[in-house]
Amino acid sequence: MTLAQIAEAIDGHLIGDSDYLIEGVGTLATATQQQISFLANSKYKKFLKDTHAGAVIVASGMGEELNTNVIEAKDPYVAYAKAATLLYPESLAQSTIHASAWIDPAATVADNVSIGPHVSIGKGAVIKSGVHIGAGSVIEQDVYIGEDSRIKSNVTLCRQIQIGQRVIIHPGVVIGADGFGIANDNGVWIKVPQVGRVVIGDDVEIGANTTIDRGAIDDTVIHHGVKLDNQIQIGHNVIIGEHTVIAGCVGIAGSTQIGKHCAIGGGTGIGGHLEIADGVQLTGMTMVTKSITEAGVFSSGIPVEPTKQWHKNVVRYRQMDKLFERVKLLEKQFKD
Amino acid sequence: MTLAQIAEAIDGHLIGDSDYLIEGVGTLATATQQQISFLANSKYKKFLKDTHAGAVIVASGMGEELNTNVIEAKDPYVAYAKAATLLYPESLAQSTIHASAWIDPAATVADNVSIGPHVSIGKGAVIKSGVHIGAGSVIEQDVYIGEDSRIKSNVTLCRQIQIGQRVIIHPGVVIGADGFGIANDNGVWIKVPQVGRVVIGDDVEIGANTTIDRGAIDDTVIHHGVKLDNQIQIGHNVIIGEHTVIAGCVGIAGSTQIGKHCAIGGGTGIGGHLEIADGVQLTGMTMVTKSITEAGVFSSGIPVEPTKQWHKNVVRYRQMDKLFERVKLLEKQFKD
Amino acid sequence: MTLAQIAEAIDGHLIGDSDYLIEGVGTLATATQQQISFLANSKYKKFLKDTHAGAVIVASGMGEELNTNVIEAKDPYVAYAKAATLLYPESLAQSTIHASAWIDPAATVADNVSIGPHVSIGKGAVIKSGVHIGAGSVIEQDVYIGEDSRIKSNVTLCRQIQIGQRVIIHPGVVIGADGFGIANDNGVWIKVPQVGRVVIGDDVEIGANTTIDRGAIDDTVIHHGVKLDNQIQIGHNVIIGEHTVIAGCVGIAGSTQIGKHCAIGGGTGIGGHLEIADGVQLTGMTMVTKSITEAGVFSSGIPVEPTKQWHKNVVRYRQMDKLFERVKLLEKQFKD
Repeated sequence: MTLAQIAEAIDGHLIGDSDYLIEGVGTLATATQQQISFLANSKYKKFLKDTHAGAVIVASGMGEELNTNVIEAKDPYVAYAKAATLLYPESLAQSTIHASAWIDPAATVADNVSIGPHVSIGKGAVIKSGVHIGAGSVIEQDVYIGEDSRIKSNVTLCRQIQIGQRVIIHPGVVIGADGFGIANDNGVWIKVPQVGRVVIGDDVEIGANTTIDRGAIDDTVIHHGVKLDNQIQIGHNVIIGEHTVIAGCVGIAGSTQIGKHCAIGGGTGIGGHLEIADGVQLTGMTMVTKSITEAGVFSSGIPVEPTKQWHKNVVRYRQMDKLFERVKLLEKQFKD
Repeated sequence: MTLAQIAEAIDGHLIGDSDYLIEGVGTLATATQQQISFLANSKYKKFLKDTHAGAVIVASGMGEELNTNVIEAKDPYVAYAKAATLLYPESLAQSTIHASAWIDPAATVADNVSIGPHVSIGKGAVIKSGVHIGAGSVIEQDVYIGEDSRIKSNVTLCRQIQIGQRVIIHPGVVIGADGFGIANDNGVWIKVPQVGRVVIGDDVEIGANTTIDRGAIDDTVIHHGVKLDNQIQIGHNVIIGEHTVIAGCVGIAGSTQIGKHCAIGGGTGIGGHLEIADGVQLTGMTMVTKSITEAGVFSSGIPVEPTKQWHKNVVRYRQMDKLFERVKLLEKQFKD
Repeated sequence: MTLAQIAEAIDGHLIGDSDYLIEGVGTLATATQQQISFLANSKYKKFLKDTHAGAVIVASGMGEELNTNVIEAKDPYVAYAKAATLLYPESLAQSTIHASAWIDPAATVADNVSIGPHVSIGKGAVIKSGVHIGAGSVIEQDVYIGEDSRIKSNVTLCRQIQIGQRVIIHPGVVIGADGFGIANDNGVWIKVPQVGRVVIGDDVEIGANTTIDRGAIDDTVIHHGVKLDNQIQIGHNVIIGEHTVIAGCVGIAGSTQIGKHCAIGGGTGIGGHLEIADGVQLTGMTMVTKSITEAGVFSSGIPVEPTKQWHKNVVRYRQMDKLFERVKLLEKQFKD
């Protein structure tokens, strides 16, 4: 593609050679003359001077001072995302159903879908047009997969799960396994049937080995535009609002509701039956034990320190209560 | 089913129309007139007044004041679990072996089992009657699966693993991968062969994408009635006592023994070579670095707060040691 | 094997019957007379006196006082690892390609490989000699697997992934899923194409259900000799140095570089864009929010305590800032 084509597609302002040909993307440090790069994180600005990139996407107003071809954009990272999407069109398998796939006669599969080797599709499943299902994936009975969704390899979609349009589900994901519903019958835990479904909206992306449990009675719901990273665990009847993003290794216990446009850092744990308001941001490894009722940035956890110092601080932490008493006594003595 | 049938089956006391027909379950907020609901968590009591449920299971003594059909039970949640189990009989596939499944000639498979598409069963494996194995699951050589156990889709049971009766294993579970046994040979880590097995008792349930490593020499053991949620990691030679329940994302390091009737909250981490007594409860995200020798409730971690306040508190935490010195000095000065 | 053979192979000093036959390994507590055991952790020394093991591997200088056959070795655990490796040669399937495996005609597969049932191998993949691929694994297009590597069951290697020699990948692992690259376009998150690869060095071992994301632009790199436990999440463009070991449930966010010879405890979380120096050790559940610039042992987190005490300490923690003010006031008052 020429730089002029890219600039137009990403709504950017080109400063440089409009016919220059770009074949791919690269980082500032490693890009070749056939690649386009970008600067979005100021941490990497030091690489800008010596980059060999054929062109660089930068923030508006930054382009004039550079020696290379430049596309200025309001948000260089968004502009880069759009450019990369153009330069790397997804090479989907053609509309074929692999001979080794097994499709139940009572499933409804659109014409132009791609179904890989060793896939299973159960009775009553509905696979809409443009869907891609990777090798080894299991689509159980009565699952619905909307237009143009891409189910990668070795995914499991359990019975009755509903998937929207343009959803991307990465390998190893399990959607719709039974929630952790158990009742204590005189010391013995008995199973509570999990009869709800999971409903996934449009344009959702779900990272590798993430698990989303089916509802106990009502459904578990992931709304439009939610992006989930890898190895996230979402309990039964959780509801996640539109355009919320969740980083890896987060666990959300049952019946909790997460608002819209939230951003949840990796390793965070959120207890059950809580409500997290729209626009809440949680930094990594936060421990959430009560509802958060308004937007804002929240945190917990004490970051790393040398082990010797850590030991000392933990000891002091446990003596705090006594320290309060000592200070109280001093205050009293002083007053007297 | 009629309410009379349900009441009898769940050992409850019916107040209302004994011939009333129930077709399913619902929550107090969403149940229809054909559904039965329950009240177990007082948080949901507010929905009781306006529920459209055809009947509600409540605690003994609570029924008289309600306008709807009621079944009183000693433990409404246990009673609900039993009612739901009756109303939603598991629709297991019939006793068939899918044509695409591969079963080694030297495996022993009972007559009335159900084996899904693309399943592999290795040499020497024993599959007892009533067992269900979902699509894509891999049962390696010499695995034993007891009567009526249900292995869902895309599960991996590694060589020699022993599974009891009525065990439920959800998709993506891996049982019997090598434990993390490594020895440092002059800076290079070499592998320590893992020659033990995993032995799973009866009535155990194991959540999606959970992993249980095989023993290094002796076996890893999960005793009868244990319930494990999703994405739990259990190291080699861990032993978990009967009727212990563990929520999602818990990690238990090698050779640790967990007692009977414990309840471990989600995201908890337990170090290696520890002993946790019978009846221990750990709240979510607890960090366990030493043995717990008697029953009780234990916790750790500092819950979420606004990030600004968190920053300030972390700074104060690290100044605590100096504060102790300052207080000590004040005490000395005051005494002098 | 005779004790003489074992002693020679593990470079140990035999005290006892050189013709004594050993058939396997056992712990000090459970070994039979046909098994060899070892003492590496002093915690288990109490079992030494009464062991029925046919022989025991101990540290140099410890052998004389024992009544059983003994092999003294500089590092008993390393010596045991070598002995066990000899006694339990891996019983790899013979060089066969299962009839149900699907191999794209445009893949290059060496003669002496073992490929299990329901495996898929994509276009352009290269499988070198001695490789074993377990049942249900998916090897996508253009993947390279080096000599003698063992891919266990239900593994997913995404397009273009490079695997070195003698690598072991346990079930459920996903390598090369898209990294969590998203850009916020006026409140809607759009996908940033992930065009880098994952490159895995030689002699790496990767535990069950671990995920390693492909690079956003450049590659994610795991260097020679790295050992990863189960359920680890490694973000895009992470680089892990040679001979570093990482225990279960660790999460490492994107673009972070981990040095050589590090040891990272289970449940640890490491933020993105950080650098961890060579030789850093992190104890379990550490929260790493900034770079660590030199070798040493580091920690965080406050360990478990009874819940009542935990509540009190959390309250005190939150009052600390006020306590500092009170002490400051006392100091001032005293001075005045």
